[in-house]
Amino acid sequence: MTYTLDDTTVNWPKRKPFRLTDTYRGYHSKGFWYESSSYEGFEHSGTHVDAPAHFCKDKWRMDAVPLDRLMGPAVVLDVSNKTKNNADYTVTAQDFQDWEEKNGRIPDGAIVLVRTGWGQYWPNKHQFLGTDTTDTSLLHFPGIDPEGARWLVQNRGMHAVGIDTGSLSSGQCANFIAHQILCEADIIGLENVANMDKLPPTGATVYALPLKIGEGSGGPARIIGIINNPEGGGGRDEL
Amino acid sequence: MTYTLDDTTVNWPKRKPFRLTDTYRGYHSKGFWYESSSYEGFEHSGTHVDAPAHFCKDKWRMDAVPLDRLMGPAVVLDVSNKTKNNADYTVTAQDFQDWEEKNGRIPDGAIVLVRTGWGQYWPNKHQFLGTDTTDTSLLHFPGIDPEGARWLVQNRGMHAVGIDTGSLSSGQCANFIAHQILCEADIIGLENVANMDKLPPTGATVYALPLKIGEGSGGPARIIGIINNPEGGGGRDEL
Repeated sequence: MTYTLDDTTVNWPKRKPFRLTDTYRGYHSKGFWYESSSYEGFEHSGTHVDAPAHFCKDKWRMDAVPLDRLMGPAVVLDVSNKTKNNADYTVTAQDFQDWEEKNGRIPDGAIVLVRTGWGQYWPNKHQFLGTDTTDTSLLHFPGIDPEGARWLVQNRGMHAVGIDTGSLSSGQCANFIAHQILCEADIIGLENVANMDKLPPTGATVYALPLKIGEGSGGPARIIGIINNPEGGGGRDEL
Repeated sequence: MTYTLDDTTVNWPKRKPFRLTDTYRGYHSKGFWYESSSYEGFEHSGTHVDAPAHFCKDKWRMDAVPLDRLMGPAVVLDVSNKTKNNADYTVTAQDFQDWEEKNGRIPDGAIVLVRTGWGQYWPNKHQFLGTDTTDTSLLHFPGIDPEGARWLVQNRGMHAVGIDTGSLSSGQCANFIAHQILCEADIIGLENVANMDKLPPTGATVYALPLKIGEGSGGPARIIGIINNPEGGGGRDEL
Protein backbone atom coordinates (compact mmCIF):
# COMPACT_ATOMS: atom_id res chain seq x y z
CA MET A 1 0.00 0.00 0.00
CA THR A 2 3.10 2.13 -0.65
CA TYR A 3 4.00 4.24 -3.65
CA THR A 4 7.55 3.94 -4.96
CA LEU A 5 9.75 6.86 -3.89
CA ASP A 6 11.40 8.38 -6.96
CA ASP A 7 11.50 11.45 -9.19
CA THR A 8 7.77 11.09 -9.91
CA THR A 9 6.71 11.13 -6.23
CA VAL A 10 4.05 13.81 -5.75
CA ASN A 11 5.70 16.39 -3.53
CA TRP A 12 3.99 18.79 -1.13
CA PRO A 13 4.24 22.32 -2.57
CA LYS A 14 7.46 24.17 -1.71
CA ARG A 15 9.07 21.17 0.01
CA LYS A 16 12.21 19.23 -0.87
CA PRO A 17 11.42 16.62 -3.56
CA PHE A 18 12.61 13.02 -3.20
CA ARG A 19 15.93 12.38 -4.90
CA LEU A 20 18.26 9.40 -5.13
CA THR A 21 21.92 10.11 -5.92
CA ASP A 22 24.21 7.26 -6.91
CA THR A 23 27.43 6.82 -4.96
CA TYR A 24 28.50 4.16 -7.44
CA ARG A 25 26.80 1.84 -9.90
CA GLY A 26 28.89 -0.55 -11.93
CA TYR A 27 31.74 -3.04 -11.78
CA HIS A 28 34.28 -2.35 -9.05
CA SER A 29 37.95 -2.33 -10.06
CA LYS A 30 38.23 -5.65 -8.19
CA GLY A 31 35.70 -7.25 -10.51
CA PHE A 32 32.46 -7.47 -8.54
CA TRP A 33 29.26 -5.50 -9.11
CA TYR A 34 28.53 -2.71 -6.63
CA GLU A 35 25.83 -0.09 -6.37
CA SER A 36 24.71 2.24 -3.61
CA SER A 37 23.05 5.63 -3.33
CA SER A 38 22.12 8.40 -0.96
CA TYR A 39 18.56 9.69 -0.62
CA GLU A 40 16.83 12.91 0.35
CA GLY A 41 13.24 14.02 0.69
CA PHE A 42 10.51 15.59 2.79
CA GLU A 43 8.92 13.72 5.72
CA HIS A 44 5.40 14.38 4.41
CA SER A 45 5.70 13.49 0.72
CA GLY A 46 5.01 10.08 -0.74
CA THR A 47 3.38 7.36 1.35
CA HIS A 48 4.10 8.47 4.89
CA VAL A 49 3.12 8.59 8.55
CA ASP A 50 2.27 11.76 10.52
CA ALA A 51 3.39 11.75 14.15
CA PRO A 52 1.07 13.65 16.52
CA ALA A 53 3.81 16.30 16.94
CA HIS A 54 3.20 17.38 13.32
CA PHE A 55 0.32 19.62 14.43
CA CYS A 56 0.41 19.46 18.22
CA LYS A 57 3.13 20.71 20.57
CA ASP A 58 4.75 18.23 22.96
CA LYS A 59 3.05 15.18 21.45
CA TRP A 60 4.88 12.07 20.21
CA ARG A 61 7.49 12.62 17.54
CA MET A 62 8.23 9.78 15.10
CA ASP A 63 10.75 7.93 17.29
CA ALA A 64 8.46 8.09 20.32
CA VAL A 65 5.35 6.55 18.74
CA PRO A 66 4.77 3.12 20.31
CA LEU A 67 4.98 0.30 17.76
CA ASP A 68 1.50 -1.01 18.54
CA ARG A 69 -0.01 2.27 17.27
CA LEU A 70 1.38 1.46 13.84
CA MET A 71 -0.58 -1.74 13.31
CA GLY A 72 -4.10 -3.00 13.69
CA PRO A 73 -7.25 -4.26 11.98
CA ALA A 74 -8.12 -2.27 8.87
CA VAL A 75 -11.41 -0.45 8.49
CA VAL A 76 -11.92 0.82 4.94
CA LEU A 77 -14.52 3.54 4.40
CA ASP A 78 -15.19 4.13 0.71
CA VAL A 79 -16.55 7.61 -0.08
CA SER A 80 -15.46 7.61 -3.72
CA ASN A 81 -19.08 8.03 -4.90
CA LYS A 82 -19.30 11.30 -2.95
CA THR A 83 -16.05 12.77 -4.28
CA LYS A 84 -16.78 12.03 -7.92
CA ASN A 85 -18.18 15.50 -8.62
CA ASN A 86 -16.75 17.24 -5.58
CA ALA A 87 -12.99 17.40 -5.16
CA ASP A 88 -13.51 19.34 -1.92
CA TYR A 89 -15.67 16.70 -0.23
CA THR A 90 -14.95 16.20 3.49
CA VAL A 91 -15.85 13.00 5.33
CA THR A 92 -18.44 13.50 8.07
CA ALA A 93 -19.44 11.75 11.29
CA GLN A 94 -22.49 10.51 9.37
CA ASP A 95 -20.20 8.76 6.86
CA PHE A 96 -18.51 6.84 9.68
CA GLN A 97 -21.87 6.03 11.27
CA ASP A 98 -23.25 4.79 7.96
CA TRP A 99 -20.19 2.55 7.59
CA GLU A 100 -20.78 1.11 11.07
CA GLU A 101 -24.44 0.49 10.25
CA LYS A 102 -23.31 -1.91 7.51
CA ASN A 103 -20.03 -3.29 8.87
CA GLY A 104 -20.21 -3.09 12.65
CA ARG A 105 -18.45 -0.90 15.19
CA ILE A 106 -14.95 0.41 14.42
CA PRO A 107 -12.82 -1.77 16.71
CA ASP A 108 -10.39 -0.43 19.29
CA GLY A 109 -6.91 -0.29 17.83
CA ALA A 110 -8.21 -0.06 14.26
CA ILE A 111 -6.41 1.55 11.35
CA VAL A 112 -9.25 3.58 9.79
CA LEU A 113 -8.63 4.10 6.07
CA VAL A 114 -10.64 6.64 4.09
CA ARG A 115 -10.83 5.81 0.41
CA THR A 116 -11.72 8.87 -1.66
CA GLY A 117 -10.71 7.33 -4.97
CA TRP A 118 -7.91 9.87 -5.40
CA GLY A 119 -5.36 7.08 -5.79
CA GLN A 120 -6.41 6.90 -9.47
CA TYR A 121 -4.70 10.28 -10.05
CA TRP A 122 -1.28 9.35 -8.58
CA PRO A 123 1.36 10.46 -9.68
CA ASN A 124 -0.23 13.24 -11.74
CA LYS A 125 0.42 16.17 -9.42
CA HIS A 126 -2.11 18.50 -11.03
CA GLN A 127 -4.93 15.95 -10.70
CA PHE A 128 -3.84 14.56 -7.33
CA LEU A 129 -3.35 17.88 -5.49
CA GLY A 130 -5.46 20.14 -7.68
CA THR A 131 -2.42 22.16 -8.72
CA ASP A 132 1.13 21.56 -9.83
CA THR A 133 2.12 25.08 -8.79
CA THR A 134 3.36 26.16 -5.35
CA ASP A 135 0.17 28.16 -4.70
CA THR A 136 -1.45 26.27 -1.83
CA SER A 137 -4.71 28.24 -2.23
CA LEU A 138 -5.24 26.16 -5.39
CA LEU A 139 -5.11 22.79 -3.60
CA HIS A 140 -8.23 20.70 -4.19
CA PHE A 141 -8.65 17.15 -2.88
CA PRO A 142 -10.99 15.46 -0.40
CA GLY A 143 -10.19 15.11 3.30
CA ILE A 144 -11.76 14.53 6.68
CA ASP A 145 -14.19 17.09 8.02
CA PRO A 146 -13.25 18.55 11.42
CA GLU A 147 -16.65 17.34 12.66
CA GLY A 148 -15.89 13.81 11.39
CA ALA A 149 -12.48 13.83 13.06
CA ARG A 150 -14.01 15.07 16.31
CA TRP A 151 -16.62 12.29 16.27
CA LEU A 152 -13.91 9.67 15.77
CA VAL A 153 -11.68 10.81 18.65
CA GLN A 154 -14.60 11.34 21.03
CA ASN A 155 -16.33 8.05 20.30
CA ARG A 156 -13.90 5.45 18.97
CA GLY A 157 -10.49 4.07 19.99
CA MET A 158 -8.63 3.63 16.70
CA HIS A 159 -4.82 3.78 16.53
CA ALA A 160 -4.52 5.57 13.23
CA VAL A 161 -6.46 7.28 10.46
CA GLY A 162 -5.28 7.09 6.86
CA ILE A 163 -6.31 8.50 3.50
CA ASP A 164 -5.49 8.07 -0.19
CA THR A 165 -4.95 11.82 -0.72
CA GLY A 166 -1.97 13.98 0.21
CA SER A 167 -3.46 15.14 3.51
CA LEU A 168 -6.06 14.14 6.10
CA SER A 169 -7.23 17.77 6.01
CA SER A 170 -8.79 18.58 2.62
CA GLY A 171 -7.05 20.82 0.09
CA GLN A 172 -9.36 23.72 0.89
CA CYS A 173 -9.31 23.25 4.67
CA ALA A 174 -8.77 26.16 7.02
CA ASN A 175 -5.87 25.72 9.44
CA PHE A 176 -5.67 21.91 9.19
CA ILE A 177 -8.26 21.52 11.94
CA ALA A 178 -8.85 17.80 11.28
CA HIS A 179 -5.10 17.28 11.75
CA GLN A 180 -5.11 19.31 14.94
CA ILE A 181 -7.97 17.25 16.40
CA LEU A 182 -6.38 13.90 15.51
CA CYS A 183 -2.87 14.90 16.69
CA GLU A 184 -4.23 16.25 19.99
CA ALA A 185 -5.80 12.80 20.56
CA ASP A 186 -2.50 10.95 19.81
CA ILE A 187 -3.94 9.46 16.60
CA ILE A 188 -1.36 8.51 13.98
CA GLY A 189 -1.95 9.78 10.43
CA LEU A 190 -1.27 7.90 7.18
CA GLU A 191 -1.25 9.85 3.91
CA ASN A 192 -0.85 8.99 0.24
CA VAL A 193 -1.84 5.41 1.05
CA ALA A 194 -1.86 3.27 -2.13
CA ASN A 195 -4.09 0.42 -3.29
CA MET A 196 -6.92 0.93 -0.81
CA ASP A 197 -9.33 -0.50 -3.42
CA LYS A 198 -7.70 -3.91 -2.92
CA LEU A 199 -8.72 -4.11 0.75
CA PRO A 200 -12.12 -5.32 1.96
CA PRO A 201 -14.12 -3.05 4.35
CA THR A 202 -12.97 -5.28 7.22
CA GLY A 203 -10.85 -8.42 7.50
CA ALA A 204 -7.31 -7.19 6.87
CA THR A 205 -4.44 -6.22 9.14
CA VAL A 206 -2.37 -3.14 8.36
CA TYR A 207 1.25 -2.51 9.35
CA ALA A 208 2.37 1.09 8.74
CA LEU A 209 6.09 1.25 9.49
CA PRO A 210 7.77 4.65 9.07
CA LEU A 211 11.45 5.43 9.31
CA LYS A 212 12.30 5.83 12.99
CA ILE A 213 13.46 9.44 12.59
CA GLY A 214 14.78 10.96 15.80
CA GLU A 215 12.62 14.00 16.62
CA GLY A 216 10.80 13.59 13.30
CA SER A 217 7.35 15.07 12.79
CA GLY A 218 6.58 12.08 10.59
CA GLY A 219 8.37 9.86 8.17
CA PRO A 220 8.22 8.09 4.84
CA ALA A 221 6.79 4.64 5.47
CA ARG A 222 6.21 1.19 4.12
CA ILE A 223 2.54 0.37 4.60
CA ILE A 224 1.32 -3.16 4.01
CA GLY A 225 -2.05 -4.84 4.33
CA ILE A 226 -2.43 -8.54 4.98
CA ILE A 227 -5.84 -9.93 4.11
CA ASN A 228 -6.92 -12.51 6.66
CA ASN A 229 -8.02 -15.77 5.05
CA PRO A 230 -8.71 -14.49 1.54
CA GLU A 231 -11.67 -16.16 -0.17
CA GLY A 232 -12.31 -18.27 2.89
CA GLY A 233 -9.04 -20.16 2.43
CA GLY A 234 -6.29 -20.57 4.97
CA GLY A 235 -3.75 -18.40 3.18
CA ARG A 236 -3.21 -14.69 3.11
CA ASP A 237 -2.56 -11.98 0.57
CA GLU A 238 -0.08 -9.18 0.94
CA LEU A 239 -0.34 -5.79 -0.75
CA MET B 1 14.67 -3.92 16.14
CA THR B 2 15.45 -0.53 14.59
CA TYR B 3 17.91 2.12 15.68
CA THR B 4 16.70 5.71 15.68
CA LEU B 5 17.96 7.67 12.66
CA ASP B 6 19.64 10.87 13.84
CA ASP B 7 22.99 12.65 14.13
CA THR B 8 24.40 9.74 16.16
CA THR B 9 23.61 7.07 13.53
CA VAL B 10 26.78 5.11 12.75
CA ASN B 11 27.55 5.98 9.17
CA TRP B 12 29.44 3.85 6.65
CA PRO B 13 32.85 5.46 6.03
CA LYS B 14 32.87 8.18 3.35
CA ARG B 15 29.09 8.12 2.86
CA LYS B 16 26.49 10.84 3.45
CA PRO B 17 25.50 10.92 7.14
CA PHE B 18 21.85 11.02 8.18
CA ARG B 19 20.55 14.55 8.71
CA LEU B 20 17.18 16.03 9.54
CA THR B 21 16.60 19.69 8.58
CA ASP B 22 13.59 21.52 9.97
CA THR B 23 11.29 23.24 7.51
CA TYR B 24 9.46 24.82 10.43
CA ARG B 25 8.99 24.07 14.11
CA GLY B 26 6.79 26.37 16.20
CA TYR B 27 3.48 28.18 16.27
CA HIS B 28 2.15 29.18 12.86
CA SER B 29 1.08 32.81 12.41
CA LYS B 30 -2.51 31.48 12.41
CA GLY B 31 -2.10 30.13 15.93
CA PHE B 32 -1.65 26.36 15.55
CA TRP B 33 1.49 24.29 16.16
CA TYR B 34 3.29 23.04 13.07
CA GLU B 35 6.51 21.15 12.53
CA SER B 36 8.01 19.33 9.56
CA SER B 37 11.46 18.48 8.27
CA SER B 38 13.38 17.11 5.35
CA TYR B 39 15.77 14.20 5.65
CA GLU B 40 18.87 12.90 3.91
CA GLY B 41 21.12 9.91 4.33
CA PHE B 42 22.82 6.87 2.80
CA GLU B 43 20.87 3.73 1.87
CA HIS B 44 23.26 1.50 3.81
CA SER B 45 23.63 3.34 7.12
CA GLY B 46 21.50 2.77 10.19
CA THR B 47 19.12 -0.18 10.35
CA HIS B 48 18.56 -1.05 6.70
CA VAL B 49 17.82 -3.61 4.03
CA ASP B 50 20.17 -4.65 1.21
CA ALA B 51 18.50 -5.44 -2.09
CA PRO B 52 20.23 -8.18 -4.13
CA ALA B 53 21.26 -5.51 -6.68
CA HIS B 54 23.66 -4.06 -4.07
CA PHE B 55 26.31 -6.60 -5.06
CA CYS B 56 24.85 -8.38 -8.08
CA LYS B 57 24.04 -6.95 -11.49
CA ASP B 58 20.47 -7.21 -12.80
CA LYS B 59 19.06 -8.56 -9.52
CA TRP B 60 16.10 -7.03 -7.65
CA ARG B 61 16.45 -3.40 -6.65
CA MET B 62 14.58 -2.20 -3.57
CA ASP B 63 11.26 -1.46 -5.31
CA ALA B 64 11.27 -4.84 -7.06
CA VAL B 65 11.72 -7.06 -3.98
CA PRO B 66 8.47 -8.99 -3.40
CA LEU B 67 6.87 -8.15 -0.04
CA ASP B 68 6.86 -11.75 1.14
CA ARG B 69 10.67 -11.77 1.08
CA LEU B 70 10.62 -9.11 3.77
CA MET B 71 8.84 -11.16 6.42
CA GLY B 72 9.02 -14.61 7.92
CA PRO B 73 9.78 -16.74 10.97
CA ALA B 74 12.88 -15.55 12.83
CA VAL B 75 15.87 -17.82 13.36
CA VAL B 76 18.36 -16.28 15.80
CA LEU B 77 21.89 -17.69 15.82
CA ASP B 78 23.93 -16.37 18.75
CA VAL B 79 27.69 -16.44 18.18
CA SER B 80 28.52 -13.77 20.75
CA ASN B 81 30.71 -16.21 22.72
CA LYS B 82 32.92 -16.67 19.64
CA THR B 83 33.33 -12.97 18.91
CA LYS B 84 34.23 -11.95 22.44
CA ASN B 85 37.98 -12.13 21.83
CA ASN B 86 37.86 -12.03 18.05
CA ALA B 87 36.36 -8.99 16.34
CA ASP B 88 37.13 -10.59 12.98
CA TYR B 89 35.14 -13.79 13.61
CA THR B 90 33.17 -15.07 10.61
CA VAL B 91 30.17 -17.35 10.96
CA THR B 92 30.67 -20.78 9.39
CA ALA B 93 28.49 -23.53 7.98
CA GLN B 94 29.29 -25.46 11.16
CA ASP B 95 27.75 -22.67 13.25
CA PHE B 96 24.48 -22.96 11.32
CA GLN B 97 24.58 -26.76 11.56
CA ASP B 98 25.20 -26.59 15.32
CA TRP B 99 22.20 -24.26 15.65
CA GLU B 100 20.02 -26.72 13.72
CA GLU B 101 21.21 -29.59 15.93
CA LYS B 102 19.66 -27.79 18.91
CA ASN B 103 16.74 -25.94 17.37
CA GLY B 104 15.68 -27.85 14.27
CA ARG B 105 15.98 -27.14 10.58
CA ILE B 106 15.98 -23.52 9.38
CA PRO B 107 12.50 -23.25 7.86
CA ASP B 108 11.79 -22.16 4.30
CA GLY B 109 11.02 -18.45 4.23
CA ALA B 110 12.97 -17.79 7.44
CA ILE B 111 14.61 -14.52 8.39
CA VAL B 112 18.00 -15.78 9.64
CA LEU B 113 19.48 -13.35 12.19
CA VAL B 114 23.11 -13.62 13.25
CA ARG B 115 23.72 -12.17 16.69
CA THR B 116 27.40 -11.32 17.19
CA GLY B 117 26.81 -9.17 20.28
CA TRP B 118 28.03 -6.07 18.42
CA GLY B 119 24.78 -4.27 19.25
CA GLN B 120 26.28 -3.43 22.64
CA TYR B 121 28.68 -1.00 20.90
CA TRP B 122 26.06 1.01 19.01
CA PRO B 123 26.33 4.03 18.48
CA ASN B 124 30.03 4.23 19.33
CA LYS B 125 31.47 4.26 15.82
CA HIS B 126 35.01 3.35 16.87
CA GLN B 127 33.84 0.27 18.77
CA PHE B 128 31.07 -0.69 16.35
CA LEU B 129 33.07 -0.48 13.10
CA GLY B 130 36.59 -0.78 14.52
CA THR B 131 37.48 2.72 13.34
CA ASP B 132 35.93 6.15 13.29
CA THR B 133 38.19 7.21 10.43
CA THR B 134 37.45 6.84 6.72
CA ASP B 135 40.20 4.22 6.31
CA THR B 136 38.24 1.08 5.46
CA SER B 137 41.34 -1.12 5.95
CA LEU B 138 40.85 -0.48 9.68
CA LEU B 139 37.31 -1.91 9.80
CA HIS B 140 36.98 -4.71 12.35
CA PHE B 141 33.67 -6.43 13.15
CA PRO B 142 32.31 -9.95 12.75
CA GLY B 143 30.44 -11.13 9.68
CA ILE B 144 29.39 -14.20 7.76
CA ASP B 145 32.08 -16.40 6.26
CA PRO B 146 31.79 -16.94 2.48
CA GLU B 147 31.68 -20.67 3.24
CA GLY B 148 28.80 -20.12 5.71
CA ALA B 149 26.89 -18.02 3.18
CA ARG B 150 27.45 -20.65 0.48
CA TRP B 151 26.13 -23.42 2.75
CA LEU B 152 22.99 -21.40 3.47
CA VAL B 153 22.10 -20.66 -0.15
CA GLN B 154 22.90 -24.18 -1.33
CA ASN B 155 21.03 -25.98 1.42
CA ARG B 156 18.30 -23.81 2.91
CA GLY B 157 15.43 -21.66 1.59
CA MET B 158 15.45 -18.58 3.84
CA HIS B 159 14.12 -15.21 2.60
CA ALA B 160 16.66 -12.99 4.31
CA VAL B 161 19.83 -12.98 6.39
CA GLY B 162 20.42 -10.26 8.99
CA ILE B 163 23.18 -9.25 11.36
CA ASP B 164 23.75 -6.85 14.28
CA THR B 165 26.91 -5.39 12.72
CA GLY B 166 27.27 -2.85 9.92
CA SER B 167 27.72 -5.47 7.20
CA LEU B 168 27.02 -9.13 6.46
CA SER B 169 30.60 -9.35 5.20
CA SER B 170 33.06 -8.89 8.06
CA GLY B 171 35.16 -5.75 8.46
CA GLN B 172 38.27 -7.52 7.20
CA CYS B 173 36.54 -9.38 4.36
CA ALA B 174 38.01 -9.50 0.88
CA ASN B 175 35.66 -8.25 -1.86
CA PHE B 176 32.43 -8.72 0.09
CA ILE B 177 32.16 -12.32 -1.04
CA ALA B 178 29.45 -13.27 1.48
CA HIS B 179 27.37 -10.41 0.08
CA GLN B 180 28.03 -11.55 -3.48
CA ILE B 181 26.90 -15.10 -2.68
CA LEU B 182 23.71 -14.00 -0.90
CA CYS B 183 22.79 -11.37 -3.54
CA GLU B 184 23.35 -13.85 -6.39
CA ALA B 185 20.82 -16.15 -4.65
CA ASP B 186 18.21 -13.35 -4.28
CA ILE B 187 18.59 -13.33 -0.50
CA ILE B 188 17.66 -10.06 1.20
CA GLY B 189 20.19 -8.61 3.67
CA LEU B 190 19.43 -6.85 6.97
CA GLU B 191 22.19 -4.86 8.67
CA ASN B 192 22.56 -2.91 11.91
CA VAL B 193 19.62 -4.89 13.32
CA ALA B 194 18.89 -3.81 16.93
CA ASN B 195 17.73 -5.74 19.99
CA MET B 196 18.45 -9.24 18.72
CA ASP B 197 19.06 -10.33 22.32
CA LYS B 198 15.35 -9.87 22.99
CA LEU B 199 14.33 -12.54 20.48
CA PRO B 200 14.22 -16.29 21.24
CA PRO B 201 16.15 -18.66 18.90
CA THR B 202 12.81 -19.52 17.26
CA GLY B 203 9.20 -18.48 17.83
CA ALA B 204 9.06 -14.92 16.55
CA THR B 205 7.97 -13.36 13.27
CA VAL B 206 10.04 -10.58 11.71
CA TYR B 207 8.81 -7.85 9.37
CA ALA B 208 11.65 -5.88 7.76
CA LEU B 209 10.07 -3.03 5.81
CA PRO B 210 12.44 -0.71 3.93
CA LEU B 211 11.56 2.48 2.11
CA LYS B 212 10.31 1.53 -1.35
CA ILE B 213 13.06 3.42 -3.15
CA GLY B 214 12.74 3.31 -6.93
CA GLU B 215 15.92 1.70 -8.33
CA GLY B 216 17.42 1.67 -4.79
CA SER B 217 20.23 -0.75 -3.94
CA GLY B 218 18.72 -0.94 -0.47
CA GLY B 219 16.93 1.30 1.95
CA PRO B 220 16.63 2.42 5.53
CA ALA B 221 14.04 0.20 7.17
CA ARG B 222 11.80 -0.35 10.13
CA ILE B 223 12.38 -3.88 11.37
CA ILE B 224 10.04 -5.37 13.96
CA GLY B 225 9.84 -8.73 15.67
CA ILE B 226 6.61 -10.13 17.06
CA ILE B 227 7.08 -12.89 19.59
CA ASN B 228 4.44 -15.58 19.17
CA ASN B 229 2.64 -16.38 22.41
CA PRO B 230 5.21 -15.04 24.90
CA GLU B 231 5.52 -17.10 28.06
CA GLY B 232 2.97 -19.55 26.80
CA GLY B 233 0.17 -16.96 26.96
CA GLY B 234 -2.13 -15.89 24.17
CA GLY B 235 -0.65 -12.42 23.73
CA ARG B 236 2.33 -11.16 21.82
CA ASP B 237 5.25 -8.82 22.34
CA GLU B 238 6.52 -6.31 19.83
CA LEU B 239 10.10 -5.02 19.66
